Formats: sequence, C-alpha cells, structure tokens
Amino acid sequence: MSANPHVVIVGAGFGGLACAKALGGTSAEVTLIDRHNYHLFVPLLYQVATAALSPADIARPIRRILGKYRNIRVVLGEVVGVDAARRTVRLADASTIPYDQLVIATGSQYAYFGHDEWSRFAPGPRTIEDARWIRAHLLTAFERAEMCRDAAEQARLMTTVIIGGGPTGVEMAGAVAELARHALARDFRNIDPRRARIVLVEAGPRLLSAFPQSLADYATQALERLGVTVLFDRPVQALAPGRVMISGETIEAGTIVWGAGVKASRAGAWFDVKLAKDGRVPVAADLSLPDHPEVAILGDTALVRGRDGEPLPALAQVAKQQGQYVGKRLAAALSGSPPPGPFRFRNRGNTAIIGRNAAVFDFGWARLKGRLAWILWAIIHIYLLVGFENRLRVGVQWFWRYLTYERGARLILPDNAGTCRPADGSEG
Amino acid sequence: MSANPHVVIVGAGFGGLACAKALGGTSAEVTLIDRHNYHLFVPLLYQVATAALSPADIARPIRRILGKYRNIRVVLGEVVGVDAARRTVRLADASTIPYDQLVIATGSQYAYFGHDEWSRFAPGPRTIEDARWIRAHLLTAFERAEMCRDAAEQARLMTTVIIGGGPTGVEMAGAVAELARHALARDFRNIDPRRARIVLVEAGPRLLSAFPQSLADYATQALERLGVTVLFDRPVQALAPGRVMISGETIEAGTIVWGAGVKASRAGAWFDVKLAKDGRVPVAADLSLPDHPEVAILGDTALVRGRDGEPLPALAQVAKQQGQYVGKRLAAALSGSPPPGPFRFRNRGNTAIIGRNAAVFDFGWARLKGRLAWILWAIIHIYLLVGFENRLRVGVQWFWRYLTYERGARLILPDNAGTCRPADGSEG
Repeated sequence: MSANPHVVIVGAGFGGLACAKALGGTSAEVTLIDRHNYHLFVPLLYQVATAALSPADIARPIRRILGKYRNIRVVLGEVVGVDAARRTVRLADASTIPYDQLVIATGSQYAYFGHDEWSRFAPGPRTIEDARWIRAHLLTAFERAEMCRDAAEQARLMTTVIIGGGPTGVEMAGAVAELARHALARDFRNIDPRRARIVLVEAGPRLLSAFPQSLADYATQALERLGVTVLFDRPVQALAPGRVMISGETIEAGTIVWGAGVKASRAGAWFDVKLAKDGRVPVAADLSLPDHPEVAILGDTALVRGRDGEPLPALAQVAKQQGQYVGKRLAAALSGSPPPGPFRFRNRGNTAIIGRNAAVFDFGWARLKGRLAWILWAIIHIYLLVGFENRLRVGVQWFWRYLTYERGARLILPDNAGTCRPADGSEG
Repeated sequence: MSANPHVVIVGAGFGGLACAKALGGTSAEVTLIDRHNYHLFVPLLYQVATAALSPADIARPIRRILGKYRNIRVVLGEVVGVDAARRTVRLADASTIPYDQLVIATGSQYAYFGHDEWSRFAPGPRTIEDARWIRAHLLTAFERAEMCRDAAEQARLMTTVIIGGGPTGVEMAGAVAELARHALARDFRNIDPRRARIVLVEAGPRLLSAFPQSLADYATQALERLGVTVLFDRPVQALAPGRVMISGETIEAGTIVWGAGVKASRAGAWFDVKLAKDGRVPVAADLSLPDHPEVAILGDTALVRGRDGEPLPALAQVAKQQGQYVGKRLAAALSGSPPPGPFRFRNRGNTAIIGRNAAVFDFGWARLKGRLAWILWAIIHIYLLVGFENRLRVGVQWFWRYLTYERGARLILPDNAGTCRPADGSEG
C-alpha cells in the first residue's frame, strides 16, 4: 500500500458506514459513494409504510454522520461498474473514480422469482419511496372503501395481502393489523376498519424459518390474535393488480405487499467471478475477492459461511460487523500492524416484532417472546438509530403511540405522475 | 332550514376545519370535502422546505381531528364545480353531493403574474410536494457544487434566489441562510456552504409591507446579518430555469423559490358573481353570497373588508375566525337562536420569523422584535399545531436545533418522473 491509499467504499448502508467509520481518522483517503444523501435504517421502514414513523425519523445525512472525519469524502452518485484491471469505479454520469482499495457494500434488493413486473403493484418496504407508496396506497384503500357503495369492492379494498412469512412479512402484517384495528378504528362512518382483512401468505410450512419453531409458533398465534389470517404452504402462483393467485385460490386485495425474499445487489456482475444462485459473491475468509485482494465485498452482496457451514443471513448486524472488520483490516495494513484473523460473525440476537407487547428474540443461547422481547426490541432499536435527535424523536413517538394507539404519519401524498415535478426542473 | 340540514364544507384548511368543529355535535349533518386526507399547517411549510421539519410534523389526518364528532363525515375528493341552482357540488370523479348549506373554504394559490409556467422551476412552499421539491432541489444543488470542478457553475449552484419580500420570502431567506451557514457548514470538503449566496428580491421599496416600517427595517438588518443580499425595487422581469432576470441584471441561481404573492382559489368561478382582481369573491357582512344566502365563502377566497375599509389579509387567523363565525351562525340558525352580528376580525398579531432569536411581531397596539418575538412565535406556533403529538415532536426538534444547529430532515428523495410509482398502480 502507498502512503495515502485511496479507499473507495460503495454503499452507505450498515456495512459501508461501519467500514468508513473504522477508517475515520486514519491516514487513508476515503471516498464513500451512495445513490442517496442519507443512511437509512431499513429494518424500521415497515413503520414508515404503516404510518407510524416519518422517513426523516429513520434516515440521517451521510455527510452529517461522517462530517467529523476530515479524511472521508462523501459522493452522491450511482456506481454502475468497476474496472478491476484499471482499478476505477464508473458512475452513472460516466465519470470514473480511481481506487487503491475498493469496498463493495451495496446490499440487496427484493427478489420476485423472475417476475420483476410484480414490483409495480406489490412493492416491499425496502426504500423510502416504496414505504411511502405502501402507506399512501393502504390509506387510500380505506378512503375508497369509505366512499364505495359496492359491498364486494369495499371488501376487496379493505383486504391487504402480505406475501412472505419472514421477519418483513410478519412485521408488516402485525403493523397493518394494528393500524386498522386501532389507529383507524373510529375515524370512518361507512366502514369499520376493524373488519379489515389481513392475509399473510407463506410458501412454506411455518413463519420465521430462521427462528426456532417455538418462536415461530408464538408469532403465528400472536398474529392470529391480532386478526391476521396466516396461510401456510401456499406459494404465490401469479400476481395481478389487486389480485393474488395462490394454490387453488384467488384473493382480491386492495393492497399487496411483498416480503418474500431478497437477492444480492447487481454488484456481483461487475467482477469476473461465478456468483451464487442468489447473486452473492463468494469471498475469502478476510472478505476479499480471491483474484483481487484489493477488493472487499461485504453484507448482503457477499456469500460468507458461518461456523455451521451455512451462509450468513442478510441482516444489518452481519453487514455492520463485516464493515467494521474490513475497515480495521485496511487500517491495520496502513499502520503496518499484523492483519486480523478471518472474519467471525458474533450473533447479537435475531428479532422480529409482531405488535404491541409481542415480539420474538433469538440469541441462540436464549429465546424470548412476548412483552419482554418487545421492550428489549424497542430499547435496542432506539439505541441503534443513528443520531441522538432521531433516537429522541422516535422514542417520543413510540411512547405516544403506546399510550394512545395513534399513528402520526397518516399522510397520503401523491408521489406520482401528474403532480410530481421533475427533480431537475430548474436545470432544464 | 329543515330538521337535519346537510352542510357541505369544501376545504379542510384553517377556515373549513374551524367551521366543521363549530358544527360538531350539533344536529346538522356535515360533510367536509378535501383533496388531501390531512390538514396542513401551511405557515410552517418553509421549515419542511429547509429540512428542519418532516411533513408529518405539520400535518394531521382530517378524520383523526374530527373523529369524535359523529355528525361529521370526511370525504377525500376534489370539488370541481357547484350547481348553485340545484344545490349540489360536483367532484372530479363526476359524482355529486347535494347540500342545504354550502361553505367554501378553498384558500389560495401562488400568483405568477400570468406566467404560470414559472411554477415549474420556481415553486413556493404552498403544498407538501412543493416543500419537498424545494428541499430536494436545494440539497442537491450543494451536492452538485461539491462535485463540480467549474468555479462559475459551482457559484451558480450555491446561489439561491427568493422572490418576494413578504413573510414567506423573509422566512425562506432566513431559513436557507441558516441551513447553509450552520447545518451544512462542516459537511463538505470541496465547497464551503457558508459562502452560499442567498438573494431576496423585492419589487417594492421595503420588506414586509403589511408590517410597520420599523419592523421591516429590523427584518432587513437581521437578514443582512445572516448574509442574505436584499434587493429592493427590483420587479422580476423574467424567469428561466436557473436564471432570474430583474431590472438590469441576470442572476444565475441553483435554486429559485417563489413567494411573491397569492391569488384566490378557483372557487369564485363556480358562482355567477363578479370577482375582485385577485379572484376573491365579495361577500355580505355575514360572509354569505349575496344572491345565495345558503352559500358562505371564507378565508383567502373571500373578499371581506376590515374596519379600515381595506381587504382583510390572506392569513390563517382570518380564515380560522371566519370559519368559527360561519359555523356558529349555522348552528344558531339550527337551534333557532338569533343570528350573530356581522363578522368582525380580531387581530391576534401578525408575525414573521427571520431566524434564530430574530422575529417580528405586530399586535397593532404593540410591536416586538428580536429574541422575545422569536420565543413568543415559537410558543404560539407549538400551541397552534393540531394534535398533542405534533406539538411534542416539533417542540423536541426545535429545542434540539436550537442547541445544535442541526437539521433533522435533510433527505433528497426523488419525488419525480422515473422512480415514482403511479399512485394507482394496483388499480390497473
């Protein structure tokens, strides 16, 4: 490595940000590139989608987070390719940025099993735009049902189908049920939102396949207590606007939400490597690319196996630990320290929230469920939110919601066609 | 009036909402129609446009506000016409709603002096979409300046021109200056946001023409202390994307914000009356339409003269008092009480905020400026925000900002073309 090597990090999610922080204040020149100007706390997006939080509550400007490190530069831009031979990354505006060390932390995206067109009418809570769209769509469905005179159409509008019984699906189903049963309950005259139908469709025999059976059973019961219909062994055969076809049944739905699985970002295609089936890049024990030790890949885009030989899951805590690891490894090389051993994942506990006083927590050595798990979940998530103001704001809102069952962010905003201004309006 | 007359209120701004509340719990059947599902605290929109608050902080679902009144129905829809002879309002979806009494509270819109095309690249903070667009545009301009190698283009991107020296223009100019000088100050590497140029362009000889000269002078000095260039006697001749032509000068600008005046909503055209030049409808002393005593018009769409013979200004407090008045008048007729006297406006004080510790307050009988006016402004606005949770949230954020100079809502979101989903995606 040269005296002041240029480290380029692509992606300011949990992994990229942790890597940048670990390199803050070192002699490396760091450039962090992201498509957005904010770091987003994706695990809480379902709360934006269900009107509990505002986008700004769970997002923070990347510049602000890293502002104190004078050796880190933040670039707002979209990386579209890498020239590994010349050591440059290519941005969407055709400019290139050279690197000495490259860190790929580009995360994952929803997988629609080859039916990408389904994303148009069945988005998942993955980006702020998705979450706001789901929120607007869900609330508009109730508004339309209130106006509607046709009983069948009214029933359709008040039906929400959530596809996928993983943590996202479970959390969305619980949050939609609480929105309808509590926050909206008394605000309509012609419909009773408490009679809204919420259906959670799972292709396999159980919910939360990454959790122990006992916690999955608890989640199913807790959802059913909230009035959610949970369907097992029903793979989705087809989706159409307002309609879900599952084995032997068609469900008419006002809102469809996707939570059925993720695949790696497209970054794997930038390198001459054989990818795993879900698009992940197999990496060495130090998270570098076998043929390119100057490239590290981490988080949801990397295929890393745990001690049990199974691939590590696509979780924030995995990405964060890998980001810290790569940052420290690069810093050690800079200072001439010995390199750290291979990356080891430390499980901080896997969690999913079903609703008020109902969550599951799996630490491996211990399992929690119910109110205690829910309180622990809330404390940990408030602590994890970047920025003290965000913590304070979210804390206040959750506490308020706990007392009143209200939802503060019930806005229907037309993020769409006619009323949208072109972002570059003033640039011609 | 029949036993249970049907009162239709169009618009859930300050006027319409106050009217609905005054009719809550009476024997009237009330229908409140609005294009949005939320009531918006428009006077604080400039804080959304400058990344200080989130949309949900200053908006609240209309259904929630009025949920406790069982005689009020809320309809999400856009009124496009009135048949005064048949006593029906027509909605955009071609449905009609009959009324016994009609209240028009449709507010105002920006006036571009016959150049409506300017709204595309010089929006004003009037709707949530406008405010979010300004926010994204402003923040993107700094991001681009950071990336830009051309000094002239960098200077252009860091220039913000605000047109109109009324309260909106003054508040926007102060807020943009504080955003650049404090919140963004240390977050960039290639540019110094403190050197951003903020120009406030006023066609007349002074700012805040509705305020006493001494307060206007104070506002000018306070803005100049914040580094804002205030230009007087410069009517705008033409606008183009990124360019403002004023007498004898062209200013190249990264962002242009409009605050140069409002005109009444289009509702006046629904009636067979002669409108004032700014589109307002002249109404009787009880705010009814002279030929149609069953129609009341209030707020920014009504032309009502104060005791001095001057038209009342387009202010939230005017609309609110008129809404309360019309609601009480209709309630009195219902209960057989004598009708109230003619509407009288009680001035609660006119205010504009320039920045931290700098505001002006004109009560008529007293004038305040500086820190005391600013504290009073903050207390009153927190009190006026609908919903206790909003108050708490905004209070926390303002206090935090006061301590740290930070801005919590610095999100650039593409509310635009390509990445926007159609709102009706799932409806085909």
